[in-house]
Amino acid sequence: MPYNELRKDYLLNRWVVIATERGRRPTDFAKQKTENAKTAVCPMCVGNENLTPPAVMLYLKDNGRLRKAQDPLAGERPKNWLIRCIPNLYPAFSPPKQPEDASQIMKSECFGKAVGHHEVIVESPNHDEGPADAELPQLELVIRAYIDRLSALRAKSYVKYVSIFRNHGQQAGASLSHAHSQIITTPIVPSLIQEELDASREFYEEHGKCVFCDIIEQESKGPRLIYDDADFVVFAPYASINPIEFWIMPKKHRANILSLSDGEVAMLAKTLKAGLKALKDLVNDPPYNYWFHIAVNDDAVNYYHWHLEVYPKLSIWAGFEISTGTYINTVTPETAAESLRKAIKL
Amino acid sequence: MPYNELRKDYLLNRWVVIATERGRRPTDFAKQKTENAKTAVCPMCVGNENLTPPAVMLYLKDNGRLRKAQDPLAGERPKNWLIRCIPNLYPAFSPPKQPEDASQIMKSECFGKAVGHHEVIVESPNHDEGPADAELPQLELVIRAYIDRLSALRAKSYVKYVSIFRNHGQQAGASLSHAHSQIITTPIVPSLIQEELDASREFYEEHGKCVFCDIIEQESKGPRLIYDDADFVVFAPYASINPIEFWIMPKKHRANILSLSDGEVAMLAKTLKAGLKALKDLVNDPPYNYWFHIAVNDDAVNYYHWHLEVYPKLSIWAGFEISTGTYINTVTPETAAESLRKAIKL
Repeated sequence: MPYNELRKDYLLNRWVVIATERGRRPTDFAKQKTENAKTAVCPMCVGNENLTPPAVMLYLKDNGRLRKAQDPLAGERPKNWLIRCIPNLYPAFSPPKQPEDASQIMKSECFGKAVGHHEVIVESPNHDEGPADAELPQLELVIRAYIDRLSALRAKSYVKYVSIFRNHGQQAGASLSHAHSQIITTPIVPSLIQEELDASREFYEEHGKCVFCDIIEQESKGPRLIYDDADFVVFAPYASINPIEFWIMPKKHRANILSLSDGEVAMLAKTLKAGLKALKDLVNDPPYNYWFHIAVNDDAVNYYHWHLEVYPKLSIWAGFEISTGTYINTVTPETAAESLRKAIKL
Repeated sequence: MPYNELRKDYLLNRWVVIATERGRRPTDFAKQKTENAKTAVCPMCVGNENLTPPAVMLYLKDNGRLRKAQDPLAGERPKNWLIRCIPNLYPAFSPPKQPEDASQIMKSECFGKAVGHHEVIVESPNHDEGPADAELPQLELVIRAYIDRLSALRAKSYVKYVSIFRNHGQQAGASLSHAHSQIITTPIVPSLIQEELDASREFYEEHGKCVFCDIIEQESKGPRLIYDDADFVVFAPYASINPIEFWIMPKKHRANILSLSDGEVAMLAKTLKAGLKALKDLVNDPPYNYWFHIAVNDDAVNYYHWHLEVYPKLSIWAGFEISTGTYINTVTPETAAESLRKAIKL
């Protein structure tokens, strides 16, 4: 029996054992779908706008044209929306009550207060229109909504990071099944983000180039490549910590998604849909999480390179993983990439 | 609505939001028990020793006396055991094939090879005798087995860390329901352990004392104390990242469990059982993981202080938690401690 492989993340001090003795193939992870219990009344569906707080941002269908309403009047709850961004009913972080609060919080280095924003982006009026099945124009709107909220939120003095993420399926933490993403802002830079920022800055200082640009070059020509177009590369990362994990990385070096062109937004929608549809087809619509890793501040513009990570929830992190921060993955990233390559439809 | 609290771990750069708006009480986490599907034949039960690899260590009942057999002859599979330590059938880490391998591996800094040991400690001949329900003499044997294996494994040149942990319940990663713990050795120091070592060394260098001794002093007199005896203090840590999380910390400053006295082993068994029984009674036998955090090497003897952490698996870490390393906990540690204090029986 050969050794299992031990791999380290490109940047993080995070190790994974690629443990293949059980000989699991990606398709082994397909399981009987456990339907999300549909709540009798979905608070995100059209007509139920009164069940959620008023939107902080709306994309409206207005005589056949898109109209954006940032910070609509409180209490306004129109039904002709395409995208709704609403405050989370149970926010983990909440905004300062008073302008003074914000400066106070900054002075004490956000000590002890979970100040920030916790928003839900309802991705479509159609309950099931998640990215794997979305019409591309609708998915482009979702990405535009991410960009608009990032732009508005990062401007606030007490926002140190903006986490944009999506939980799909109950086992991946989605308590409601209507297609939605979430945005959380934190008054600290979270440790994982800080570690990535530090490592990429160090690489830049030492080598005079972006480590992610290097990764793209390597992975574009290797066995972990899944898909490659003009603007994006999709690959299973070398030290994937999950079965069938994949990342989407933009070829153009940018620290975040704020200045994506119309063409890039369209291409990202296409790429994201293709990847998630392949995952869905390959393992029977598994639960997953995805998120953006971005640099919120402009000082990281030279060395940080935004990307999107997709973590299918196909195994349980137990005592070893949780207590050590070291992972065991039973599918090689190379096998995962091969399976996703075959499953992808463009 | 008041702000949620944002707390940082004693040592790690790890933050948690104590988010109590949903007003969840510890008992709200009790749920219908989903029975582990009992496999027709349990490979850990007495009489089925042929279904697992031969033991690397046995505690035997020998004319009413305990006999320890370290490294029993391969192929020996006696049935009169009290504790069996066997290699995991699907090891994440495996030992060097040849003595040369080990030195080779060390030279190349364990590059790319998951070299180590992955063992299972069968805690009792009785299928259901987990720590919450164990007879104390049997639970003492489990702790002695941890110590014996730690002693044997840390002596190997390619072992940089020894992770001793227990997964309870399918949702916490236990694939078999027979009471068992696991031991994994790694050829690297895992990142979470390294971070704790570094932070406690820095504290020691700055303050000339052990940070954990300080924590014990603080938590012994505060609202997060659950239980306190001559040798151990049990408390809900200040920045608990899970509902009803608790830690067991020895009052005597030691880097690991190797030199526990007989009395301390007995007291640890009693304390561990009391804590886990309280958890079981409080929330209907929830899935959980526990593990030891120890320093394997003697250089940490001044500044590191072993402890045991219990993480009940009562919430799902989703996109935000996984991507940022920042957590949301819906039960305050103070409430958790109060509930466990009431539930504890000594």
